[in-house]
Amino acid sequence: MPAVYVFDAYGTLFDTNAAVQRHQAAMGPDGPAFSALWRRKQLEYSWIRGLAGRHDRDFWQLTEDALDFSFQFYPKIDPALREALLDAYRDLDAYTDAVPALRALKEAGAKLVILSNGSAAMLERAASSSGIAEFFDAIISVDEAKTYKPSPAVYELVTTLFRVYPEAVSFQSSNRWDVAGAKSFGFRTVWINRFNEPDEYWDLSPDLVLPDLISLRAD
Amino acid sequence: MPAVYVFDAYGTLFDTNAAVQRHQAAMGPDGPAFSALWRRKQLEYSWIRGLAGRHDRDFWQLTEDALDFSFQFYPKIDPALREALLDAYRDLDAYTDAVPALRALKEAGAKLVILSNGSAAMLERAASSSGIAEFFDAIISVDEAKTYKPSPAVYELVTTLFRVYPEAVSFQSSNRWDVAGAKSFGFRTVWINRFNEPDEYWDLSPDLVLPDLISLRAD
Repeated sequence: MPAVYVFDAYGTLFDTNAAVQRHQAAMGPDGPAFSALWRRKQLEYSWIRGLAGRHDRDFWQLTEDALDFSFQFYPKIDPALREALLDAYRDLDAYTDAVPALRALKEAGAKLVILSNGSAAMLERAASSSGIAEFFDAIISVDEAKTYKPSPAVYELVTTLFRVYPEAVSFQSSNRWDVAGAKSFGFRTVWINRFNEPDEYWDLSPDLVLPDLISLRAD
Repeated sequence: MPAVYVFDAYGTLFDTNAAVQRHQAAMGPDGPAFSALWRRKQLEYSWIRGLAGRHDRDFWQLTEDALDFSFQFYPKIDPALREALLDAYRDLDAYTDAVPALRALKEAGAKLVILSNGSAAMLERAASSSGIAEFFDAIISVDEAKTYKPSPAVYELVTTLFRVYPEAVSFQSSNRWDVAGAKSFGFRTVWINRFNEPDEYWDLSPDLVLPDLISLRAD
C-alpha cells in the first residue's frame, strides 16, 4: 500500500461542472461552449505562465481572467452572471464518491493530501465548504513552488514534505495531462476517468484507470 | 527600426486553416469541431511537455498524437483521412500578405527569422513549398532549446544567434499566448490579430496590434 495518497482537486474531488451548470439556464444556448472555454482558458493561462517562468498571478486570478475573456468571446452571455459564476467556483461540492473513498483510505492508515493548481485560499475554502477538509494531512497549493502543474517542482512538494520517494506516492487525477505530468515525475498514477474520455499521452500512461474514487480501495 | 524581425510560423505566416478546410467536406458535420480539437491538443501537448521538462517528442509527433486523439474523440470522422490531413499540414500556403510584407522588410535591410514550435524538417518543408524560404536569414526550431514556446529559452535562441538585446527584436505572432511569452521575455511584440479575437493576457500586452502582416512597414 502506498504511503501517501495525493489527490488533484478540481474535477477530481470537487465537482466544478455541477457548480457551473446551476447557471446554465441563465446563460442560454451559448452556455455549454462558454463554460468549456472558461475551463480551457483557465488551464491555458496556467500552462503558459508556468512555461514562461512567471507565477505572478495565482490560480484564482487566472480563473477570473479566463471568465472575463469568455464573456468577451460570447457577448450574448450576460456579464451580470460574473459574480454568481465565481461564487459557484468558490463553494464547491465534493463528488459523492469522494467521502467514502477518503474515509476508507484514512481508516487504513494512509496519509491523504490535496495537490492543486488552486491558491491556498481557494483550496481551504472548497475543502471546508464541501466537508472533506477533515480527511487531509496536507493541502498543498502550487503557490509554494511558484509555478503550475505539470512542472516537476509541483509534484516534488509532496516528496519533500513527506520525505518519501515518488514511487511511494499514489497520485489520483481526473485530468489526463496531470496524470502524464505526475507519471513523468515518477508517481504511481491513477486516472479517474469520470467521463469515459479517450486516452492520450500514450507514453505516459497511468498505472491504473478507474471510473471514480470509490474503487480506490486500501487493501 | 528593429534589427531583427522574428515571425511565428503556423497561423502567422502559414495558413493552416486553409489547408485543413480543403478536407471539410470529407469530414462531415463534426469537421470544424474536429479541426479545432486537433489544433487545441497540438498546443496542449507542447505546453504540457514543455512544463514537465521533456522534449522527447517533437512538434511533428505531437501533431500526429493530437490528430490521433481527435479521431478517437470524433469516431464519425473517417480515420482514412489521417494521411491527407497530415499532408495538408506538411505543404502549406503562406498567407497572401506574407510575401509583400517580407519583401519590403528585406529590402529595407532587416534580418528576417522564423521562430517556431515546428521541427526543423517541418519548417524547412513549409517554407520551401510556400515559396517564402528565400526571405529568411534563419529558420529556428524550438528543438535547439529542447523545450517549447513560451519558454524563455526559446526566445533566447534569437538573441543568442544575432547577438542583440531583446528590445532590438520585433516579434510577430497571430497566437496571443505566443505574444505574451515574447513580451515576457522582452521582445517588442506585434499581435497579428487576423480573426479579430478579443484580447487576453492583459498584463502582457503587445506593443502593436495589426490585422495582417502587410501593415508591418519598414519605415
